Amino acid sequence: MKQLNVAILGCGTVGGGVARIISEMNSEINTRASKKIILKKIVELNPETASKKYNIDLNLFCGGGKKLTSDEATKYISDIIHSEDIDLVVETIGGTSNFVHQLCLDIIKAGKNLVTANKALLAERGKDIFELAEANNVKIGFEAAVCGAIPIIKNIKENLTGDKINSISGIMNGTSNYILSRMQNENLEFEEALKFAQENGYAEADPTLDINGGDAGHKLILLTKLAYGIDVSMEDLAIVGIENIEKEDIDFAKEIDAKIKLIGYVKKVNGNIYATVRPMMVKNTNFLAEVNGPTNAIRINNKYSGIHILVGAGAGSSETAMSIVSDIVFIARYGEKIKNTAEHQERKIEDSRKFVFPYNITFHTADIPGTTGFITTAIGKQNINIETVSHNRHSGEKAQFSVVTMPTTLGQIEASIEEIKQAKPDMLLSEPKIMPILN
Amino acid sequence: MKQLNVAILGCGTVGGGVARIISEMNSEINTRASKKIILKKIVELNPETASKKYNIDLNLFCGGGKKLTSDEATKYISDIIHSEDIDLVVETIGGTSNFVHQLCLDIIKAGKNLVTANKALLAERGKDIFELAEANNVKIGFEAAVCGAIPIIKNIKENLTGDKINSISGIMNGTSNYILSRMQNENLEFEEALKFAQENGYAEADPTLDINGGDAGHKLILLTKLAYGIDVSMEDLAIVGIENIEKEDIDFAKEIDAKIKLIGYVKKVNGNIYATVRPMMVKNTNFLAEVNGPTNAIRINNKYSGIHILVGAGAGSSETAMSIVSDIVFIARYGEKIKNTAEHQERKIEDSRKFVFPYNITFHTADIPGTTGFITTAIGKQNINIETVSHNRHSGEKAQFSVVTMPTTLGQIEASIEEIKQAKPDMLLSEPKIMPILN
Repeated sequence: MKQLNVAILGCGTVGGGVARIISEMNSEINTRASKKIILKKIVELNPETASKKYNIDLNLFCGGGKKLTSDEATKYISDIIHSEDIDLVVETIGGTSNFVHQLCLDIIKAGKNLVTANKALLAERGKDIFELAEANNVKIGFEAAVCGAIPIIKNIKENLTGDKINSISGIMNGTSNYILSRMQNENLEFEEALKFAQENGYAEADPTLDINGGDAGHKLILLTKLAYGIDVSMEDLAIVGIENIEKEDIDFAKEIDAKIKLIGYVKKVNGNIYATVRPMMVKNTNFLAEVNGPTNAIRINNKYSGIHILVGAGAGSSETAMSIVSDIVFIARYGEKIKNTAEHQERKIEDSRKFVFPYNITFHTADIPGTTGFITTAIGKQNINIETVSHNRHSGEKAQFSVVTMPTTLGQIEASIEEIKQAKPDMLLSEPKIMPILN
Repeated sequence: MKQLNVAILGCGTVGGGVARIISEMNSEINTRASKKIILKKIVELNPETASKKYNIDLNLFCGGGKKLTSDEATKYISDIIHSEDIDLVVETIGGTSNFVHQLCLDIIKAGKNLVTANKALLAERGKDIFELAEANNVKIGFEAAVCGAIPIIKNIKENLTGDKINSISGIMNGTSNYILSRMQNENLEFEEALKFAQENGYAEADPTLDINGGDAGHKLILLTKLAYGIDVSMEDLAIVGIENIEKEDIDFAKEIDAKIKLIGYVKKVNGNIYATVRPMMVKNTNFLAEVNGPTNAIRINNKYSGIHILVGAGAGSSETAMSIVSDIVFIARYGEKIKNTAEHQERKIEDSRKFVFPYNITFHTADIPGTTGFITTAIGKQNINIETVSHNRHSGEKAQFSVVTMPTTLGQIEASIEEIKQAKPDMLLSEPKIMPILN
């Protein structure tokens, strides 16, 4: 039986999980790959911690198990990249630094396959990495980079190849879904729910990238590349996070039988591609509304086969590591026949402000007769049809209500709000909150 | 670019969908397969009907588009099997007849790859087909045979290879789920809901195999073979259908926050494999309880990556055809490197009466004081702990109540019922209804 030699760079939560699964499941994965998969080397600054935590033989660590300086680690990494004895490198260092970016390029230049969970790097700086891999016929496994354990990459690339994707929408960040679920179910404000998320290990001490939509944006960029072959930037997505979601927003969502979820959404309409990441009011008839807690879920709408939904763990040591090990098995088995992504399409994504949705717009106004009429008239002038206007919540001299529109664009809504501001500078007490509604 | 020549045998609902997708998506599938996929020949008794319905060029049909006698069709099929010009045969004739069984063996003997949606054939008579394919290094694509559009086969075989499957449970028959959903949501009796299913095209005129659990059983046999490498018979599964589900059962399920679903379930416990198909009371906290209508859903519980759920269309022309086309692309791309199933394991499945679940048992009794005590005592004597006893519904001289047990086996429950019958021959007015509870 042939063999495939693996090195792991960075033995933290994910890298440690990979080492553990390769060791515990060695006979199964060898059979499945029709190759011996051998973990040859690990580079890690603190081998002892990793060894204990993930039950890894200390001899596998470069340096024989002693702590490494950063310089020593760099030297060992260089040895691995230039070793004839390594076929595949697992990059679980993470981050988008020049060091990691160059490292991935070097791995590919050396003709070694690369498996990584590094969504930020591939999404923000992946273009030349994928191009170099193409040129060198090197395989990149990045199943673990998108929604942890959910095998969404292979489902798109290998399983649904007899179909055309109309759209992909999903809950792509477990932390924000955990926070929104607790706000929803326990009537909490954002700050309280975030605190619970941190206490329960579902949010980092610095949760910025999870709650500001950045992490979901990285995943949507990779899915867009896979589904439609186009390169999209974070700016293209016009990302909105969940930091400003309040109890009252959740109440307005309840009024229209919906739940607020942070949704990544890419859709092809008449040949044009639209994509965005933002909180949406997901109707309870949509499966995504039922997905609670730190779970991720992806909904694919296909031309021939209709709706597919995949639900699974979005993060976690062994969960994410499973995806990496599956990538190793896939590369070991099918090698050079694999395609890394879809054929590259030279075209631009559309302005996300032209992405059509029904919208919910929440207004805080002075409590003056005629306000509702003035606002709904301004909306109508932009050719937006109104579906419903919520019960008006008067409190003191303030009023608060929501308008649900028929399908329209953010651009049209913004124009109507601009008109209200121009004509009645004192009418709006704060910036209206605009949220797409997902049916 | 190399090419892969395809023939379709039987151009009904599924075969017609395959021809249509191959034609409409030809450039995409060629790119994805890195091969030209060419539909060369179709054998169909009534080409004109199929041609019109699925927009297929009449020249593709053997016989040039005229109706074929059964003898002519058989001759054309034989020509295709022995043609040097065909690489892959799509069998969409269906059924488990000797003719179709021998046909599949002949296709494989001729060294041609086989793609089929024929779950009944592969489940009931597939052993020698898979063995012959192994011996001849021929690939069998059967994604379409299990849950229509859901790519469950490749998810198990190719995507979750870095993990061990603890269990697979799921809603594997759309017709019965449609019926149960309508019973549940509209408070209908079985016969009324079945009528609606037939009127709306979700049940055949003869719905036997859908409602008696046979169809779900076929799928579970194939999933068991894939997940654990063992061959299981329909008898092993101790299949129970939904024909005897009544309104009152649905009400008892509601009382314990559950919905009745026809569930196929295979589980590995301490190295032993248990499997069964029967109606279960699925707790609302389990995602499967949320799956309504003709949709299928599979829940995989994995050792490392936890719970995965896949939801999608269980049937339909283009939905099922999509899975077949995806199989063709996969075989075109990866060819002989593909494994058809898991490594065969020479071991027996356990007696399904020893499969451990919490159970709901519904008793119809004479309305006599002491009945509940006697029955619950008999259950306790079999070392079964009781979780709850429902409110007793007295009506005239009859009483009706449910006992929810802690995890136990069907064997133990049957022993307790036997004891009740022996000791009090008049106590039970009908056979108690026993249903596993799925958490």
